[in-house]
Amino acid sequence: MIKTNSKVSPAVIRRLPRYYRFLNDLQARGINRISSGVLSDLSGYTASQIRQDLNTFGGFGQQGYGYNINTLKEGIGDILGLDRKYTVVIIGAGNLGRALARHGWFPKETFKVVSMFDSSKDLIGKDVAGIPIRDVTGLPGFLSEHNVDIGLITTDQKVAQDIADILVEGGVHGIWNFTPTDIETPSTVVAKSEHLSDSLHELLFYVNHTD
Amino acid sequence: MIKTNSKVSPAVIRRLPRYYRFLNDLQARGINRISSGVLSDLSGYTASQIRQDLNTFGGFGQQGYGYNINTLKEGIGDILGLDRKYTVVIIGAGNLGRALARHGWFPKETFKVVSMFDSSKDLIGKDVAGIPIRDVTGLPGFLSEHNVDIGLITTDQKVAQDIADILVEGGVHGIWNFTPTDIETPSTVVAKSEHLSDSLHELLFYVNHTD
Repeated sequence: MIKTNSKVSPAVIRRLPRYYRFLNDLQARGINRISSGVLSDLSGYTASQIRQDLNTFGGFGQQGYGYNINTLKEGIGDILGLDRKYTVVIIGAGNLGRALARHGWFPKETFKVVSMFDSSKDLIGKDVAGIPIRDVTGLPGFLSEHNVDIGLITTDQKVAQDIADILVEGGVHGIWNFTPTDIETPSTVVAKSEHLSDSLHELLFYVNHTD
Repeated sequence: MIKTNSKVSPAVIRRLPRYYRFLNDLQARGINRISSGVLSDLSGYTASQIRQDLNTFGGFGQQGYGYNINTLKEGIGDILGLDRKYTVVIIGAGNLGRALARHGWFPKETFKVVSMFDSSKDLIGKDVAGIPIRDVTGLPGFLSEHNVDIGLITTDQKVAQDIADILVEGGVHGIWNFTPTDIETPSTVVAKSEHLSDSLHELLFYVNHTD
């Protein structure tokens, strides 16, 4: 769930990263051009929905001629904001924080994870793949001295809102929250929560109700 | 995204774990009774939507008297399938796999992570919080000898579908996929994908389009 004041339909925006991912795969396979029909087969969305979504942003194809994959991928990437760079901090250097720091979610062309923060004396002063782990009490000072775009929260849920408040106060533009708490932010700061427990519970429902 | 043949609306099912989470928090705070109005304030869903959702499953409250939190939480838990136990295997013992194994997503009352699997010689034979890491070539044999309910995939995306096929063949009922690939399963096996890169890209869109 995401809170935002953007005027484009959230459903359209949710589909864009998916289109981007499919186009990226097609590009990696050396394919140059695709029709909305084939993109429909791949993505599971109808061809008319895809055309409509892309027309929201001005349209990228010519009728009956399909889409140039490189152009479309770059166009969607630009809409998503992949044409600029973002600085990231990760609050919480536990197992999940460290896994997120090390994993490929943050390609170097687009993201720079500048610091991690934790309250554990065992972790402070160490580093994860070259990213220093700092004392979380230094977070407000760090944010006042550095331009940070995005903050990840992987702390205990009890302090998630406090950390979010510090991130907002420190001027971040987006928060990616991995705690089970729904955090509150002003409408100018986007908060996106990954409630993995909810997701697992949803999976369980289907495990128990699928024939 | 989830693929299923269940007949209850996916939107309702997506809300159930959320209700469960709020009720769990309220219960932990010692609160016994809640109106759909207060649940509405907490969850952001309208009170009438909440009443309608809960009525789908037979209704849990008395008009004007609110819901007993313990009863409602247990009732929703039962619908989700939290009243039984699940065995889990994790394929991919890299950073993310290890973080998922160690994190609290799998409370012991409900889940037992029985084994992890990997192809790396450096990892095979080791363990993560007491969970053994086995050679992935032994996965089909393991599944034929053990009753496994749920398989997590945190491997390289290139082998994700192959692993999913082995899990399906081995009789799992649900697959929780953390690779960027959309995996295909027969309609009898539920696959739920966490596309964290898509999620991050969605966040970026809002970071760039929120005033």
